[in-house]
Amino acid sequence: MAIIECVPNVSDGRRPDVIDAIATSLRAVPGLRVLDVQSDASHNRSVFTLAGDAGAMRAGIPTLFEGALRAIDLRAHKGEHPRLGAVDVVPFIPIEGVTMDECVQLAKSIAADVAAKFSLPIYLYEDASSNPARKNLEDIRRGEFEGLAAKMQQPGWAPDFGPSTPHQTAGATVVGARMPLIAYNINLATSRLDVAKKIAAAVRMSSGGLRYVKAMGIPLEDRGIVQVSMNLTNYEKTPIFRVFDLVKREAERYGVQILESEIVGLVPAAALRQCVEYYLQIEGFSAAQVLENKLRSRPGE
Amino acid sequence: MAIIECVPNVSDGRRPDVIDAIATSLRAVPGLRVLDVQSDASHNRSVFTLAGDAGAMRAGIPTLFEGALRAIDLRAHKGEHPRLGAVDVVPFIPIEGVTMDECVQLAKSIAADVAAKFSLPIYLYEDASSNPARKNLEDIRRGEFEGLAAKMQQPGWAPDFGPSTPHQTAGATVVGARMPLIAYNINLATSRLDVAKKIAAAVRMSSGGLRYVKAMGIPLEDRGIVQVSMNLTNYEKTPIFRVFDLVKREAERYGVQILESEIVGLVPAAALRQCVEYYLQIEGFSAAQVLENKLRSRPGE
Repeated sequence: MAIIECVPNVSDGRRPDVIDAIATSLRAVPGLRVLDVQSDASHNRSVFTLAGDAGAMRAGIPTLFEGALRAIDLRAHKGEHPRLGAVDVVPFIPIEGVTMDECVQLAKSIAADVAAKFSLPIYLYEDASSNPARKNLEDIRRGEFEGLAAKMQQPGWAPDFGPSTPHQTAGATVVGARMPLIAYNINLATSRLDVAKKIAAAVRMSSGGLRYVKAMGIPLEDRGIVQVSMNLTNYEKTPIFRVFDLVKREAERYGVQILESEIVGLVPAAALRQCVEYYLQIEGFSAAQVLENKLRSRPGE
Repeated sequence: MAIIECVPNVSDGRRPDVIDAIATSLRAVPGLRVLDVQSDASHNRSVFTLAGDAGAMRAGIPTLFEGALRAIDLRAHKGEHPRLGAVDVVPFIPIEGVTMDECVQLAKSIAADVAAKFSLPIYLYEDASSNPARKNLEDIRRGEFEGLAAKMQQPGWAPDFGPSTPHQTAGATVVGARMPLIAYNINLATSRLDVAKKIAAAVRMSSGGLRYVKAMGIPLEDRGIVQVSMNLTNYEKTPIFRVFDLVKREAERYGVQILESEIVGLVPAAALRQCVEYYLQIEGFSAAQVLENKLRSRPGE
C-alpha cells in the first residue's frame, strides 16, 4: 500500500484545545494516522505529522482546514515564525509505493478542492510548483500575512488556486510536494569554527557545493568542538555518503578529522540502504531482501 | 510485538500433498505466518519459513510435528541431504523485540513439550545447546537416522529431552536457537582462483579468521572472475563491514580490487544499520529513527 507523509503547519501553538480538536477530527478519518503533533508557543505554531494513502489524505486535509479556519484569526496572531495563513504550509512527501509525481498530482488536486471549498487562495511550492520564482517557500511567504493583500496584486503573484485576494481571517496557504528532509550533522575533532564554516561553504549548494545540501558551521561550546550542521533536501540525488565523504576530504585539507556524525530525527530506510550499497559496493540489492520488510509484506498469511 | 523466525526442516520433498497439508495446518494457527515453503526432491526435504511471537510458535510447532510424524516414515526415506528425523531441525531465530536468550528458553520449552507429546528424543543445538560437544548440527547429525540407535547408546549422546531410544519412524529432532544467517559474496576483479582461496582462508574462522565467518573461494566461470563466497553466522559479533574491509585489505596485497559484493536472500535491517553507523561514524542512532519503522509503530492511531 502507498504511504504518503503529510506535515501541515498550522498557525496556533498556544491554545491546546484548538490543536487537540483538530487532532481528534483527523484521528477519526479512516486510514489516516496522526503520528505526531508538536506545538511551539513562541512560534505560535503547531506541526502535525500524518501518514496514509491518497484517499486518506483527500479525506483528512479538508478536515484539517475546516478546524483551523474555524478557530484561527490571523489578524490577531503573533509569533516568531513567519506565516502567511491559518493553515500555513501543507507538504506531501512520498515514502513508500508512491512516486513524487503522484504526490504532486495529489497536492494539486487537494489544493483545488480546498481553495474552492473555503474560498482560500493557494500557492503551489517545491516539486508541485509550476513557476521557478515560486518554488521556494521563503519566497512565497515573504511579506507574511500582513503584506499578503499588496503582494497578491503584484505581477506574478496571483495564486494557483482560489480567489485573488486573501481570505480575511485565514490569509493564504502554501501546498506542495517535496522529498523527506534529513537533518544530518558532522562533528569535527577541532574547536576551530573557521574550519566548520569553510567546510559548510564548500558542501552547500548556495556557495557552489552539492545541489541538495543546506549547511552552516556552528560551535558546540559545551564540548569544545565545532559542527557542520546540514539539511539534506533530496537524499536520492544528493546521498548521505557523498556528503560525508566530501566533508571528510575537505576537513583533511585543514588537518582535521571527523569525530562523529549524527542523524537528527527521522530518516527513510532507502537513504540508509544507499550508504550500505555504496560502501560495500553491493550490486543488485532490493528492499525486499530486508528481513523485516518480508515479515511485514504478507499480513494475510 | 516480538518477531521470532522459525525454519523447520522436514524430511519429505517429494510428496506435495504431505507438505501442503502441513502448511495448511500451520496457516490456521492464530498469529503464525507461513512466509515460505521450499521443497527439494533430490534432497527429499522441505524447509518452512515461519514468523510470529512465542505464543504462535508454542501453538504451531507441535502442529507441524503432528503432521510430519503422521505422514513420514524415515525407514523408507532416501535423499541427498543428511537427516536424523522426520522433523529434522527446528531453529528459532530472534528478529525483533526479542532476545537470543528468550529464543533459547522458547526452544527448550517447545522441545520438552514435543518430546513428551510424541515420545520423541530431542537434541538441543547452537545457542540452546548445554554441551559444547553438541553445539554443531553436523556433529549431532553424524551417523544419520540409520546410525541413531547405536549413537544414542554411546556416552554423552543421551538426548536433552524424550526417550533414550529413537522414535521408530521419526528418529530424533534437533531443536535450537541461532542468529540469522547472512549469505554474503564478494567478487574480485581477477580470474585468479588462488587469490580467492587465500582470501577465504584468511577471513574464515576455521583457518584463523573471523569467528562467525564461513568462506570459500570459487570461480565464476561465465564471467571470468572469482568470488569469496561466505556465510556470516552472527552479524552482531562479526559485522558485514568488518568482513568487507578485511577482504579488501587482503586483496590489496595481491594487487586485486573488489569488483562488487552481493547479499543473497534476506538480511536483517540491523545488519545494514551497523554498516551505515560504521562508515558514517554515526553516534546515537536508533531503529526508531527509521521513518518506515515509525510509520509502522502505531497501527492504532
